[in-house]
Amino acid sequence: MAVEPLVLDGKLVASEIKESLKSRVAALKEKGITPCLATVLVGDDPSSATYVKMKGNACAKIGMESRRIHLPKETTTEELLDVIGELNDDSSVHGILLQHPVPHHIDERAAFEAISIEKDVDGVTSLGFGQNSLGFGEYPSCTPAAIMSIIDYYGVSLEGKHAVVVGRSPILGKPVSMMLLNRNATVTTCHSYTENLPDLLATADIVVAAVGKPNFIQGEWVKEGAVILDAGYNKGNVGDIDYDACYEKASAITPVPGGVGPVTISMLLKQTVESAEKDARILQNS
Amino acid sequence: MAVEPLVLDGKLVASEIKESLKSRVAALKEKGITPCLATVLVGDDPSSATYVKMKGNACAKIGMESRRIHLPKETTTEELLDVIGELNDDSSVHGILLQHPVPHHIDERAAFEAISIEKDVDGVTSLGFGQNSLGFGEYPSCTPAAIMSIIDYYGVSLEGKHAVVVGRSPILGKPVSMMLLNRNATVTTCHSYTENLPDLLATADIVVAAVGKPNFIQGEWVKEGAVILDAGYNKGNVGDIDYDACYEKASAITPVPGGVGPVTISMLLKQTVESAEKDARILQNS
Repeated sequence: MAVEPLVLDGKLVASEIKESLKSRVAALKEKGITPCLATVLVGDDPSSATYVKMKGNACAKIGMESRRIHLPKETTTEELLDVIGELNDDSSVHGILLQHPVPHHIDERAAFEAISIEKDVDGVTSLGFGQNSLGFGEYPSCTPAAIMSIIDYYGVSLEGKHAVVVGRSPILGKPVSMMLLNRNATVTTCHSYTENLPDLLATADIVVAAVGKPNFIQGEWVKEGAVILDAGYNKGNVGDIDYDACYEKASAITPVPGGVGPVTISMLLKQTVESAEKDARILQNS
Repeated sequence: MAVEPLVLDGKLVASEIKESLKSRVAALKEKGITPCLATVLVGDDPSSATYVKMKGNACAKIGMESRRIHLPKETTTEELLDVIGELNDDSSVHGILLQHPVPHHIDERAAFEAISIEKDVDGVTSLGFGQNSLGFGEYPSCTPAAIMSIIDYYGVSLEGKHAVVVGRSPILGKPVSMMLLNRNATVTTCHSYTENLPDLLATADIVVAAVGKPNFIQGEWVKEGAVILDAGYNKGNVGDIDYDACYEKASAITPVPGGVGPVTISMLLKQTVESAEKDARILQNS
């Protein structure tokens, strides 16, 4: 293809968001409120530990606090629910992130559901999902919110366009489908049972890859001029799309790394700051 | 077309469901519990009054109780919220139905959200929507649940099939999209901004019409052999599909009236009975 696609640089989007958050955090501190994200990690998964550490560092960089709770892998569902309950009740905590995945013996859904809607800054509760899907929620799931931020930053048009989402997880495929639908895209959600994925992708103006399989989306499947957003992050810094082949066809494309990932963390920070700002307003009015 | 399509008779489905509910209601009554649906009607809209009356009659026919609350059109949001709060607290009420639409000055969403999840047998809360979308809710929205019942009754295969839903309302298009997705269909949700509806419908194995426009879906748009489910109900007993033209193409099709409509009411009854059965179990274990 003669024209190179626009590379949708997530680091640019993320740094603009974080820059604006710094002054908001400073303003909150002047009122005596330091936005605080509590991260809960259960067990010893090294990738999860790295993610949690990255999130803590990101908080520190914009002047936010983070409180890291690390529980042993033997933790029971009940013990985890107790910890979440304490964080819900702690007025110095503005957001709660339970790092996925938790050990298999824990009821992860019950743990997510226990997070109070006011502190569900990672957008994992069914209530948060429902509210955002119906168009009035406060804190959407962070990766879908990151995808929407990139779309808005680069002025990608959605109205009437056909968006094909590959993946249907509760924190990615389903919520991003609903968010694209609320922005007037026509949305097709695909998954492992989909019989005719290449045919569907051939009609997609916008492709969201959220399937968790390295290099899964082939260049020959996508339409010339499609906007391709890769939310996948697999071992070896590889996304869910075959980048080089898709690059040849796309009008715009997110890289991996440096695409959706960095914006996701900035969404988590932004939503925690928003929760703290809400607290500040409540305090002011009380 | 040489082969006549299967007409998906909703009255058959509904009467089978209602027949099984009669014995469940009788069993509950022996335990001293009469399942009770509270219907709340605000204002004087004659169609709404008819719908509420039909629902009350349907309750009576299977031995259930219904409590009709009719509020004047001047009712404020706060007054309506108070009424819903009282019904939430009333242990003799097992399900609450707020008849849509309420007068414009009322915040309908706030009123829906006020219904406790345990009594949201009509599936209108964002929490209920979220739970069902993520695959673990109890009472889905009734019209989508009716569509799924018809699909199951007639053994329509969903796995890997392409379902195109036309409409994206909170109680119909969105939840039925999610329910089809949870049953492993590939789902496309269309709406007024969709640019290429006939092209999309041409690829649909299953069509769900939920748009509220009489005779909107044209026979020439649908694929030969498609299963067509019409959730529309417009003035003059007309659905959202051009029935005669779609009949020529479909392998199976719901009529209007006598298709999705009667099953919707039986879903409302079924979910109210389930709520009462849950209460009975709680009483037994206390």
